[in-house]
Amino acid sequence: MADTSSEFVFKPIGIVKSCFTELFGIPRQPGLAPTAEGKILICPPFANEQAFAGLEECSHVWLQFIFHANEAEWRPKVRPPRLGGNKSLGVFATRSPNRPNPIGLSVVAYRGWSKDNGNFYIHVAGLDLLDGTPILDIKPYVPYADALANAYNHIAAEPPACHPVVFSSVAQAVIDKWKTEKDAADLERLIREILQQDPRPKYQRIDTERIYGMSLYDLNVRWRYVPNEKADFFIEVVEIGNKV
Amino acid sequence: MADTSSEFVFKPIGIVKSCFTELFGIPRQPGLAPTAEGKILICPPFANEQAFAGLEECSHVWLQFIFHANEAEWRPKVRPPRLGGNKSLGVFATRSPNRPNPIGLSVVAYRGWSKDNGNFYIHVAGLDLLDGTPILDIKPYVPYADALANAYNHIAAEPPACHPVVFSSVAQAVIDKWKTEKDAADLERLIREILQQDPRPKYQRIDTERIYGMSLYDLNVRWRYVPNEKADFFIEVVEIGNKV
Repeated sequence: MADTSSEFVFKPIGIVKSCFTELFGIPRQPGLAPTAEGKILICPPFANEQAFAGLEECSHVWLQFIFHANEAEWRPKVRPPRLGGNKSLGVFATRSPNRPNPIGLSVVAYRGWSKDNGNFYIHVAGLDLLDGTPILDIKPYVPYADALANAYNHIAAEPPACHPVVFSSVAQAVIDKWKTEKDAADLERLIREILQQDPRPKYQRIDTERIYGMSLYDLNVRWRYVPNEKADFFIEVVEIGNKV
Repeated sequence: MADTSSEFVFKPIGIVKSCFTELFGIPRQPGLAPTAEGKILICPPFANEQAFAGLEECSHVWLQFIFHANEAEWRPKVRPPRLGGNKSLGVFATRSPNRPNPIGLSVVAYRGWSKDNGNFYIHVAGLDLLDGTPILDIKPYVPYADALANAYNHIAAEPPACHPVVFSSVAQAVIDKWKTEKDAADLERLIREILQQDPRPKYQRIDTERIYGMSLYDLNVRWRYVPNEKADFFIEVVEIGNKV
């Protein structure tokens, strides 16, 4: 029988190819940016349609993955950025990446598989994972078991509030150009979905003089916060350039 | 960056103490037997209320665990018992325990923590895990991200059908005695919840002459299948004895 000194060794079954090329800006949960598409490069010997046969009957899949970019040690208490950093919670009461076993859990929409140049890919949408994330397992979502109608979580009761997002004419021009490119379905929609949630940690005071930036694909998206009359703000995308 | 040859090593944060003392009879998904209560013996250094502070705000938790009792090698295709064993599916289209990385995922009701004799326990209900299962992580259920109202899974669209369960007078006498014992909240309800789903693999023909058995706590529950007029059957619990 396993005991507390047992060790379990896992290897990735795949690696995420994501539009999110840095941690900052990634939505706090999957599904918050439905346009965030990505794919999982499946490793041999799993890289064939046999192992995924039937998955087309499922709208969504669970990804069990490694929080590979988090180097912080786990601590018993964490201060989730979403709660303004002033509420301390037990690590197991949060979805914080800094966990004793850094295994994450995300449900994403399943969009089928493809083969390209000898590589086998699983396509997903509503992704909240960093490019390069190792995937340990893919499981079908089972609504009757997984979708609990009466569950509550008073710490994270609802998705983050949304703020209006506008684009400067300079940024809009880049988007319009991108729109003409193949595979660039809707960069504007994706940027809106990401920024409307305001990626800043909530304990940071807004600096209206500052230009914030995040990587998306090989782009650098830059924005600022513009106060409005309701003591709230909107977000203006000022510039979209190439990632340096 | 992680690649496909990376290895990740995990140690359990806890070990399950479950009413299910053998694999046969365990519900196919969590929540199907809400009375199935259990606890997780948390390992040091996680064994204190600090690491779980705030979890009382959550009705449910995800358990990420090891399928430790499955010794079969993974294969690209599996035949889920629930589908009668005659439909072959890709392993990643199922929740089969025989997976490349044997990490399971179950959502269970959270019932608080306790300390007893220097041990720290997390209490759960609706459990579908074998006694001794190593737990890798406990995460709060986040309804707005995890409970997908529009998800579908045509392979496992609904819970298993339920069959009537009756108790012989001999079995009922054991239950009535158990009911008078401390901590034995509702053995009868638990047995009903488990057996009404019919634990047999669906590809087995029903043998109405045979007595079936499963372990529950330190008991051995024995039942048979009684045909009824609708070409269906009911389940009679014939005997409840001590596990040998």
